Amino acid sequence: MTSLIAIDWGTTSFRAYRLSEQGTIIDKRQSANGILAVEGGQFADMLVTQVGDWMDSEPDAPVVMSGMIGSRQGWQEIGYVTGQPGLAEIASGMGQIALDSGRVVWIAPGYSCLNADGQPDVMRGEETQILGAVSGKSGAYTFCLPGTHSKWVTVVDGKINGFTTFMTGEVFYVMCQHSILRKLMTDQGRIETDAVRWFDDGVDKAKAGISLLSGFFGVRARALFAEIPEAYTKDYLSGLLIGTEIRDAYKDNTTEVTMIGSGPLIELYGRAIKSFGGQAQLANENLAAAGIYQLAKEIR
Amino acid sequence: MTSLIAIDWGTTSFRAYRLSEQGTIIDKRQSANGILAVEGGQFADMLVTQVGDWMDSEPDAPVVMSGMIGSRQGWQEIGYVTGQPGLAEIASGMGQIALDSGRVVWIAPGYSCLNADGQPDVMRGEETQILGAVSGKSGAYTFCLPGTHSKWVTVVDGKINGFTTFMTGEVFYVMCQHSILRKLMTDQGRIETDAVRWFDDGVDKAKAGISLLSGFFGVRARALFAEIPEAYTKDYLSGLLIGTEIRDAYKDNTTEVTMIGSGPLIELYGRAIKSFGGQAQLANENLAAAGIYQLAKEIR
Repeated sequence: MTSLIAIDWGTTSFRAYRLSEQGTIIDKRQSANGILAVEGGQFADMLVTQVGDWMDSEPDAPVVMSGMIGSRQGWQEIGYVTGQPGLAEIASGMGQIALDSGRVVWIAPGYSCLNADGQPDVMRGEETQILGAVSGKSGAYTFCLPGTHSKWVTVVDGKINGFTTFMTGEVFYVMCQHSILRKLMTDQGRIETDAVRWFDDGVDKAKAGISLLSGFFGVRARALFAEIPEAYTKDYLSGLLIGTEIRDAYKDNTTEVTMIGSGPLIELYGRAIKSFGGQAQLANENLAAAGIYQLAKEIR
Repeated sequence: MTSLIAIDWGTTSFRAYRLSEQGTIIDKRQSANGILAVEGGQFADMLVTQVGDWMDSEPDAPVVMSGMIGSRQGWQEIGYVTGQPGLAEIASGMGQIALDSGRVVWIAPGYSCLNADGQPDVMRGEETQILGAVSGKSGAYTFCLPGTHSKWVTVVDGKINGFTTFMTGEVFYVMCQHSILRKLMTDQGRIETDAVRWFDDGVDKAKAGISLLSGFFGVRARALFAEIPEAYTKDYLSGLLIGTEIRDAYKDNTTEVTMIGSGPLIELYGRAIKSFGGQAQLANENLAAAGIYQLAKEIR
């Protein structure tokens, strides 16, 4: 029997889970219907399209959502919790929306802090994944969530201490697509198994303290002098950027890092963290569902 | 009487000077016919279109060019001089092209070094401007040439010691035009005289050691919390980038910096250098013409 319908509704993806009373995933669905795919504010209709059958068959199961669905561009803006929140504080920031049917759906808040660089920083969705990751665990943890806007998060005894966001993935994308470097970036002759060597080379440059702004120009200059084959300039740039992020984010590299994510990017981050003398492990999957399960227990 | 036709032929601009025997500028012309505007390799035709009348009236005056015209994308690729070249070494790297008329035109070489970050670096055209700036001067100089690809150059007793290129202007452009930050960057309500405050704020963040990758995300987060009005996010980003360049390039800020360039960008660099506790002065104009004049004396 489904006791919870958990939804991780992001900018470009919609992920839904049916959970048992014990938090086991009974069923899951995923689509590209992130908030950007919803036109004219028709979020309620999209929800029904995606999981209406689940909702009909389990009329008493709470529907709890996290992610960008609670942002200004989402269904309803839910504020940010601040300070060093644990499960109770994040749960207390949840908002609700009553559907036309009278059923209530819940949306998790975002989390905002003053980051390591002394500037305000924001997350939405990651705080729920973190709750899933640290549920029932005490002690100190460092999390890395690689991506378009990578986040490094510290947690002590179940409370989020703070975090910093790095625009690494997006800078990689715009430099590859729109800078003068794009002309070098052919995949012609690229052999996948050789690519990691050039990724490592970029990480090493970052580790040696290169300025990112001169490092970018160096991609071009090194290709000009055939120090880097053009087919691998993208891999080198990736290493340079991820290495710079790790250099700036992971100052205490004696702490083990728990990476949240999947796919080739996670492998590259793990490799780079190791190159900095650190240790990285991979978190379980479906952490959003696990975090929403914890939040849902607080509202019952 | 014209004794030299000097041409600074760059990627997007063509600047020509008629110089007297003493190096005085008698006349000058400028157009947007940089090498990108020349189709099908018709550089000789373009030269005649631009300064054919000068060439006809002074058949014995050398025609000497510097800049991207000597690059692979230009008229003829002229190699790079290396090491710590002065006037004689740069002049010895010049190449010549014989026109159909039999007249010879000269092209200055580029200059390549291993930069402060240990990577190969290249310039084309700037070395000639530097020659113009240090002609007849001994002592140590630090030059800053702000722009799309800013260069920081050190010269001792007329010899170029080395330099480092920073992709500052281009990163500013791609982040403004193509990143998620573009959505914030309205000019609506922006008051020019207030902008410098936000530029300074970005410089201060860089000075405090902020990571550029987190600083980029901070533009968005600070705007979200109304710490920076959206109309000034571009100014703040400009300060963040220029400040980061200066932090990484200008480690010995007791040396006076001579800036080569003109316009509002030079004013911003001067302001930021001062904020780092350094001193900046502006070089004379028409340094390319002055440098080519020095080179031309070597070939006569």
